[in-house]
Amino acid sequence: MNLFSHKLLSISMVSGLVAILAACASGPASGPEPITLSAQGNFAAGGAVVKSDGVFDGQQLFDPQGQTLHGDHAMVFYQLPVDAKPYPLVFLHGAGQSANTWGTTPDGREGFQSYFLRHGYGTYLIDQPRRGRAGQSTVPGEVSAETNDQMWFNMFRMGQWPDFFDEVQFSRKPEALDQFFRQMTPNTGPFDEQVISDSVARVFARSGSGVLITHSQGGGPGWWTAIKTDGVRGIVAYEPGSGFVFPEGEVPDPMSSGTGELVATAVELEQFRKLTRIPIVIYYGDNIPTRPSDNPGQDNWRVRVQMAQLWVDTINQHGGDAQLVLLPDVGIEGNTHFPFSDLNSDQVAELLQQWLHNNQLDR
Amino acid sequence: MNLFSHKLLSISMVSGLVAILAACASGPASGPEPITLSAQGNFAAGGAVVKSDGVFDGQQLFDPQGQTLHGDHAMVFYQLPVDAKPYPLVFLHGAGQSANTWGTTPDGREGFQSYFLRHGYGTYLIDQPRRGRAGQSTVPGEVSAETNDQMWFNMFRMGQWPDFFDEVQFSRKPEALDQFFRQMTPNTGPFDEQVISDSVARVFARSGSGVLITHSQGGGPGWWTAIKTDGVRGIVAYEPGSGFVFPEGEVPDPMSSGTGELVATAVELEQFRKLTRIPIVIYYGDNIPTRPSDNPGQDNWRVRVQMAQLWVDTINQHGGDAQLVLLPDVGIEGNTHFPFSDLNSDQVAELLQQWLHNNQLDR
Repeated sequence: MNLFSHKLLSISMVSGLVAILAACASGPASGPEPITLSAQGNFAAGGAVVKSDGVFDGQQLFDPQGQTLHGDHAMVFYQLPVDAKPYPLVFLHGAGQSANTWGTTPDGREGFQSYFLRHGYGTYLIDQPRRGRAGQSTVPGEVSAETNDQMWFNMFRMGQWPDFFDEVQFSRKPEALDQFFRQMTPNTGPFDEQVISDSVARVFARSGSGVLITHSQGGGPGWWTAIKTDGVRGIVAYEPGSGFVFPEGEVPDPMSSGTGELVATAVELEQFRKLTRIPIVIYYGDNIPTRPSDNPGQDNWRVRVQMAQLWVDTINQHGGDAQLVLLPDVGIEGNTHFPFSDLNSDQVAELLQQWLHNNQLDR
Repeated sequence: MNLFSHKLLSISMVSGLVAILAACASGPASGPEPITLSAQGNFAAGGAVVKSDGVFDGQQLFDPQGQTLHGDHAMVFYQLPVDAKPYPLVFLHGAGQSANTWGTTPDGREGFQSYFLRHGYGTYLIDQPRRGRAGQSTVPGEVSAETNDQMWFNMFRMGQWPDFFDEVQFSRKPEALDQFFRQMTPNTGPFDEQVISDSVARVFARSGSGVLITHSQGGGPGWWTAIKTDGVRGIVAYEPGSGFVFPEGEVPDPMSSGTGELVATAVELEQFRKLTRIPIVIYYGDNIPTRPSDNPGQDNWRVRVQMAQLWVDTINQHGGDAQLVLLPDVGIEGNTHFPFSDLNSDQVAELLQQWLHNNQLDR
């Protein structure tokens, strides 16, 4: 083919070349850099096997006798960027959530999953036992299908239904709220901190030493995971809601709020001491009252923060290195219960990066 | 800095250059090429919203009255390689499975998810409504935790418990079977082909036109998806197990096997005709008897293949382009009910690639 045999073609090719050269000079104008992975995949970690009495009969396939069931494992999706930093980030979601909580934000941007890949961290995203893709439970469960969107809206401090809080870091587009509500996925068996932390400890056996990042209800199993494995080199807990562990004899009294009592857990001193050997940071967002509030959706966070402060103090009194950060105190305002997927999630991620750096967990 | 001011440095740089040149010449020796993505993320597609009678009271958070519930959506994880081919692959899992079914194989190799990314296809992996991360159902459900591993082992034609079939394409390492059993995850609400296909049709609204790849129980909702949206440009069905749709008046009689009756579904002729306008291929693996067998785990596949053949014939009689491929007939032997994750999954993938190419779906 003669490239210049047709004038129209030659003009179009030249303008194409100009466009390509312009793109090379200015960098990609049409989106972020590619994400380059050396590996990705999924695996089950930990779990139990139960067996029914009797002998399996291949003629009676649907008779459970003599059959086994594999359940109570965590399910993990991992991605390793090329030239990954030595410590991967292992993510454990909160109540009613799955690994998706760390993915695309409700308003459609990249969440922590892709953000930290782009910054060189291997990521391990967990569906905890009896949730999401780790749904096979050795204990029966019920899914109620009870209506509860408005409860979560208030509990997650997006506002007081139907109103958003002023300046809250959540999109006002209806499709963002729709995506957010659809992230919820139920328990398929009883929530059990020991079952969860047993399996998350096994995730670290596979990932190698790393940093555990928990959200909300994941906080409790997170402490237990670090008690059970030395693989946890640091813990970042976003808005831990329950399951604070204190040494026997130092357990605070239950704390009352608009949604009931918050009760601490007693552990042996030796167990507690494991948490004093790694850096820990706890973050909470905005719109958490410091005095009793008549909005129970907000009020429960008042006592969770109070207990978190007691917990951090206790860790540090035992020689540990824990820190409680209220995001508004460091100039990051308007966050809901999900700072890592709020509109300002990149800013929240930068704060985490700085903490990782300060604790030499980025190298 | 003067590059050659220090002899040691210059030698190390030269040997570094030599190493780089050698790597360029021979290709990477230490593993596969990186996977390079232009984008990845997750989203919910379709679904319903239900509302309880009454008015929500922010003081009574746990009272369902006046509250809504978002459920019955599909949950999707997508990845787009750089320079993706025009038609992405949209994957719908089978019974008791989730999107993980397309991920890492039980024996620890890359499955179809990464294989097809490496071959330039965008991938959309679905958790169907009321399964996995799409667990929020508008209808209550129960998780029985009944022991059933051995049933699946036989039904999925890995062998007759506790024996594997000779030459079956499944690892004999205990950890592979452990991973396989842990891939199972239960329904969180009733299985409903219409609910599923409604949401999968909405996945195509987001992905753009593409090829639908189904497994087993996903076959039925797969046909319905192509009836409901023109976005489906081709269907690849691995071992469809039920839900074959025939035009009214052409529905075959139920077929009996060792696990019960297989019943076809009647649809309007206009609906059926939509399936005659796209290329369709159905694959089945090995160890499927052609005459009644006293092993119900195998025998049920005998009638499923028979009905699949009737279905393909009916599609083609109506001017369509459907094909039934028994993998042993094309020299691919030993496959279980999961050809795409068996030991020879790369060979199974190559066959699919060839089909995509022959149908101009790779460009």
